Amino acid sequence: MNATELGLPMAVPAEGLPSRVRIHEVGARDGLQNEKATVPTAVKAEFVRRLAGTGLTTIEATSFVHPKWVPQLADAEDLYPAVSDLPVELPVLVPNERGLDRALALGARRVAVFASATESFAKANLNRTVDEALAMFEPVVTRAKEQGVHVRGYLSMCFGDPWEGAVPVPQVVRVCRALLDMGCDELSLGDTIGVATPGHVTALIRALTEADVPVPAVGVHFHDTYGQALSNTLAALQQGVTTVDASAGGLGGCPYAKSATGNLATEDLVWMLRGLGIDTGVDLGRLVATSVWMAAHLGRPSPSRTVRALSHQEQ
Amino acid sequence: MNATELGLPMAVPAEGLPSRVRIHEVGARDGLQNEKATVPTAVKAEFVRRLAGTGLTTIEATSFVHPKWVPQLADAEDLYPAVSDLPVELPVLVPNERGLDRALALGARRVAVFASATESFAKANLNRTVDEALAMFEPVVTRAKEQGVHVRGYLSMCFGDPWEGAVPVPQVVRVCRALLDMGCDELSLGDTIGVATPGHVTALIRALTEADVPVPAVGVHFHDTYGQALSNTLAALQQGVTTVDASAGGLGGCPYAKSATGNLATEDLVWMLRGLGIDTGVDLGRLVATSVWMAAHLGRPSPSRTVRALSHQEQ
Repeated sequence: MNATELGLPMAVPAEGLPSRVRIHEVGARDGLQNEKATVPTAVKAEFVRRLAGTGLTTIEATSFVHPKWVPQLADAEDLYPAVSDLPVELPVLVPNERGLDRALALGARRVAVFASATESFAKANLNRTVDEALAMFEPVVTRAKEQGVHVRGYLSMCFGDPWEGAVPVPQVVRVCRALLDMGCDELSLGDTIGVATPGHVTALIRALTEADVPVPAVGVHFHDTYGQALSNTLAALQQGVTTVDASAGGLGGCPYAKSATGNLATEDLVWMLRGLGIDTGVDLGRLVATSVWMAAHLGRPSPSRTVRALSHQEQ
Repeated sequence: MNATELGLPMAVPAEGLPSRVRIHEVGARDGLQNEKATVPTAVKAEFVRRLAGTGLTTIEATSFVHPKWVPQLADAEDLYPAVSDLPVELPVLVPNERGLDRALALGARRVAVFASATESFAKANLNRTVDEALAMFEPVVTRAKEQGVHVRGYLSMCFGDPWEGAVPVPQVVRVCRALLDMGCDELSLGDTIGVATPGHVTALIRALTEADVPVPAVGVHFHDTYGQALSNTLAALQQGVTTVDASAGGLGGCPYAKSATGNLATEDLVWMLRGLGIDTGVDLGRLVATSVWMAAHLGRPSPSRTVRALSHQEQ
């Protein structure tokens, strides 16, 4: 018998936490775009289908970025139609108007833009200043909203930056405000290099609230580089956040951080939420099986503690 | 430059947390006793010395259990005198009066007994019922206290048990009360198989408080089997807990849990506490270097996320 067959973790709710959390699953996009190996389109489609079969309701499918920049996701035009029949939300990343055109042509109803809280990362990732990047996104967001398409605004480096160090909270709040003001429906606060800690998370979300950013519009996106992703998530939940990004099996990472560990693993998140009695609708056993299946395709074990424990994967 | 050279994580205190946390370092005992390889005494002594050099103030050194049960620590009589000059607390495990005699003969001033919250684990680990084990410890604790020796009471399986599943909170409170009533100075609440989640931690500590257990006497001992150790620690800190057990580099594990990940890694804990502005007195860079040095002796990389990130160890 394993832990879940023993009814573990026991559900013991804590005060002041939401009753339900929506997991924004990023493994197929954020995870696979950081894999060295290019995964065949059919495997990606099967991955998204299996993820949908676990009960996940929001599965970021791919990115309509130029193939030169992210060759791992160059098959977006083939992948998206292969999964668009699924009864789940399938947001896609669109870096610019060209990307938006490609996504809209395939019927995408949710898109995401990808901004930076720091000048250094805006320069490195987009070859623009922060404000030039925002100006580039404005027509993307405007046109998407005109079509009734839901827009998420990703914001990288919300806590620390590999060139600049700690990122001041007001600087992050300013860009969040700009993304919402141009029409984004929700934000995803990215700790791209994994240096956030719980007090910093609390401070940022409170500062956003003081800047009239509604908490339901705030998602969090933590990386587990220093093992902090789940405690940061707990701090965010304590501030009322109900949207948490995670990656099945902990797939992915940041190419600018020299560590193999990347996104918060969806399984570790589901384990905690299950223990807190917070509904996610996700079947943990199916999710672990999906990550084990994907890990076999990638030829390396999942870094997720929960996947390892429940699948008896060797470290 | 790495993250700490960039001044990361940024210290952002959170409300309601203690200003100082004492780390009870268990790597040399709990960590090494679960290693397949027996580490030479000189390496263990050097490990303890290096740990003391990081600023850690409480370093559990070894166990005076019968060598037949824990052959990895059969050198306790040689190890303890090799480190007892260090200006730190060096608690040792004593399973019974014979163990206490051996520890006292070497001048030990802090000892620990090892009880179980569940009948199944008491039977498996001690071949006794819970109450028979408590009866065995009573003269150990009494005699230690007569000598002015500080006594810690470890309690295993405080949240879940591999045979019994979820462990009821009142059952744990009863054994905690018994350990304190026989004279233990402090408790260490062990999540031996790593299934605790933050609400469960909060509920247990509150129930202990209601049973007149003073929070300063409560330590927590989390395992990272499902990636929950640090969020559970945060929940404990929010209840006022100031003693946290951790293992340098995440050494160790539970032989009854089929997972390679074991104790909360001290480095991941120090990273979080540093981010929360909580003083530990530990030099993180020296600690990482110590764990990398030990990992080389053990021939496998540390499972600590922070060690991997700061040392650029490959996964």
